[in-house]
Amino acid sequence: MKVPNVQLLLTGDELMTGDIVDSNSAMIAQQLKELGLKVTKKVTVADNLSTLVNEIKSIVLSADILIVNGGLGPTIDDLTAQALSEATNLPLEPNPHALKHLTAWCKKRGMKLNEPNLKQTILPKDCNIIDNKRGSAVGFYINYQQCDVYCTPGVPHELKTMLEEQIKPAIAKTIPCNLKSDVTRLQVFGLGESTLQKLINENLPDWPENIELGFRAGSPLLEVKLTTQSEQAYEKKQLWIAKLSNLLGEHLLGHIKDKPLSLAEYVLNKLQEEQLTITTAESCTGGLIASMLTQISGCSNSFEAGFVTYSNKIKQTILDVPLHTLEEYGAVSKKTVTAMALGALKKSQADIVIAITGIAGPDGGTEKKPVGMVWLAWGNVKNIKTECLYIPLNRRYFQKYTASIALDLVRRYLKGNTELPNYILERRLSNVNK
Amino acid sequence: MKVPNVQLLLTGDELMTGDIVDSNSAMIAQQLKELGLKVTKKVTVADNLSTLVNEIKSIVLSADILIVNGGLGPTIDDLTAQALSEATNLPLEPNPHALKHLTAWCKKRGMKLNEPNLKQTILPKDCNIIDNKRGSAVGFYINYQQCDVYCTPGVPHELKTMLEEQIKPAIAKTIPCNLKSDVTRLQVFGLGESTLQKLINENLPDWPENIELGFRAGSPLLEVKLTTQSEQAYEKKQLWIAKLSNLLGEHLLGHIKDKPLSLAEYVLNKLQEEQLTITTAESCTGGLIASMLTQISGCSNSFEAGFVTYSNKIKQTILDVPLHTLEEYGAVSKKTVTAMALGALKKSQADIVIAITGIAGPDGGTEKKPVGMVWLAWGNVKNIKTECLYIPLNRRYFQKYTASIALDLVRRYLKGNTELPNYILERRLSNVNK
Repeated sequence: MKVPNVQLLLTGDELMTGDIVDSNSAMIAQQLKELGLKVTKKVTVADNLSTLVNEIKSIVLSADILIVNGGLGPTIDDLTAQALSEATNLPLEPNPHALKHLTAWCKKRGMKLNEPNLKQTILPKDCNIIDNKRGSAVGFYINYQQCDVYCTPGVPHELKTMLEEQIKPAIAKTIPCNLKSDVTRLQVFGLGESTLQKLINENLPDWPENIELGFRAGSPLLEVKLTTQSEQAYEKKQLWIAKLSNLLGEHLLGHIKDKPLSLAEYVLNKLQEEQLTITTAESCTGGLIASMLTQISGCSNSFEAGFVTYSNKIKQTILDVPLHTLEEYGAVSKKTVTAMALGALKKSQADIVIAITGIAGPDGGTEKKPVGMVWLAWGNVKNIKTECLYIPLNRRYFQKYTASIALDLVRRYLKGNTELPNYILERRLSNVNK
Repeated sequence: MKVPNVQLLLTGDELMTGDIVDSNSAMIAQQLKELGLKVTKKVTVADNLSTLVNEIKSIVLSADILIVNGGLGPTIDDLTAQALSEATNLPLEPNPHALKHLTAWCKKRGMKLNEPNLKQTILPKDCNIIDNKRGSAVGFYINYQQCDVYCTPGVPHELKTMLEEQIKPAIAKTIPCNLKSDVTRLQVFGLGESTLQKLINENLPDWPENIELGFRAGSPLLEVKLTTQSEQAYEKKQLWIAKLSNLLGEHLLGHIKDKPLSLAEYVLNKLQEEQLTITTAESCTGGLIASMLTQISGCSNSFEAGFVTYSNKIKQTILDVPLHTLEEYGAVSKKTVTAMALGALKKSQADIVIAITGIAGPDGGTEKKPVGMVWLAWGNVKNIKTECLYIPLNRRYFQKYTASIALDLVRRYLKGNTELPNYILERRLSNVNK
């Protein structure tokens, strides 16, 4: 039995104007994925009868399963039942199951069944009702031209319950059980999509066809997805995950099965494991690193204090950076960033520090110290490491990216890795200026 | 001249699996709406060559403008150029403009141009390049079968800049000028969409039909969009903007024509105007308020220092919160938040302060001090105001929302507004607990 071709038809004026972002189709796809099914095409159109009829007629020619979402409500722009009726030539009739549902639904809420609500009970003849536990509009099912058509409500929580409790089990009965796919995701920092693709091409040229490789560029992490469909591939997969992990080296943060982790989570997990605390001394990132760390619940075990020292005066008074250091070397210098790091360690009594001072721009750059130049310091009181990088991105991305780099450097440091990654070497100001 | 038929073709495996929610199509629709254009159909497909070719061939039959989004990256699953080439019979060739862009892009970042990147420069013969200021992949334009086809990158911020600076102006030249609409946006804080709609219905029942009202719920700001099509409406518009502004009162942050401002920008603008400086003392928001302020270029005129005092010990040692205050009243209390505020003012010598301490959760709540409880303090050394609110959202949203409230309270304070907004009164812990 072949894998069924699944398509979605989404209807709603609000989906076309951009006033809302469609999250329903992602929800449907995620649920179907658990059955090993992929959505091959999604079509989104406004609430227009002839457009809907044409799309339905066209999609059923290639789809085995069509999920229609939206257009089941009580208002005149809800047209799904009418469109299905026209496309299939099944006349619209009052549906007794739908009426029963709606009567009970209204009674439970002390509401009177009104004319617009009654419209929701007029459905294509002999269609099968799909209960809606959360709302007034029932869904319905029709098999038309060898295509299973499921019509579902647009309200996300109504759709969710209907999918989980009724549509997914119904579809599961119609498909072969060996379809279920297995997905492993590797989280990577410091390698771009193209570099990673090249690495794999060159080092693992015999990558097996039945382990599908996918990339998802996030900010700042990149995810590599390995998807397998057959049981045979499952066994092989562990071997290839190991090969790929080896290739990725310290760029690999971890494997995940469910929720992605953030860079800050990887750092905090390691700090917790080692029973260490961290502090931050931020100039150009202005509290962003502290904020990334404190977004994570449980951070209080490893993070007590952060300092946002934006001006020179504050670097002196709060972090004890000597005035002569600032005067002689400037705020963006190795001496200053080191003094900031040591000051933050002293004031916070933390074990580990990240300090950062740079020129976020767009103003404030000079020829010797251009916008995008940044000094980083990290380590403990006995061993402070420093680097000067050049990250010429706009202010927002400069801050995000340098904060991420700072966290990654601490992560590597905590793992005892002393080798500097390529992404640092390439961005060293001294190299860039050559 | 008729209104052009605009359609979108979105490509990406990640859009089909539900791993990401598509926000690009909403962004495109919003931008085109400002030209008076509506998207009539969106098709989303996986990264599959024959599917893409077929969709392009089919869409150009009915569309005047087709925007293709995604598939311009360096990896093997990026197929847009190839698909356009097959659909249009224009051979793929190295494009000198694209190569120039990519060479400059890599050079600026101190990176080496590699093989996968070079793939991004192989484009359909004679296509027109659309510059990408934010990323490596250029966009391109082809007129095929009387349809203007624009191919755009999937990375949202790259797409956004390309739309605003190049595609929108290019499309604007091709459409009749009476389509062009005039959009004014009002930025609002502290009122929800439905409350605002109700306010308008009740207080401005004779709202004119030719001034279209739209809402765009952002986080944390709400935008009210007033769109007019005819010149007649332009004149009336100022009157209705004034009426609406009056109704919104201090909830209205400002009118914008172009780029939205952030809450932090409104605060910094006011501080700059008054020649005042601000400092932050953050516990539960962990540096987020400082980060929101320092995201804004030029913040150094008004912001010098921020303190992230997550633990009790640090509240004592860095902000001089007395030990007996912490022991007697706890870290989340009026006395502690006031002491944090005064300590931050003293250490930073700033004029104005925001201090915040609360229980972000998910752990750490008690019956008397539940997760979501937060004390805020703001003002100057002579006059510190405090409030205790109950914001039972998940950790991330709790932090974002309380940080936004803190900034809004300072904004109102700077404007000399002493009345507390409803959104504060409704969320007072004392009221919630009644």
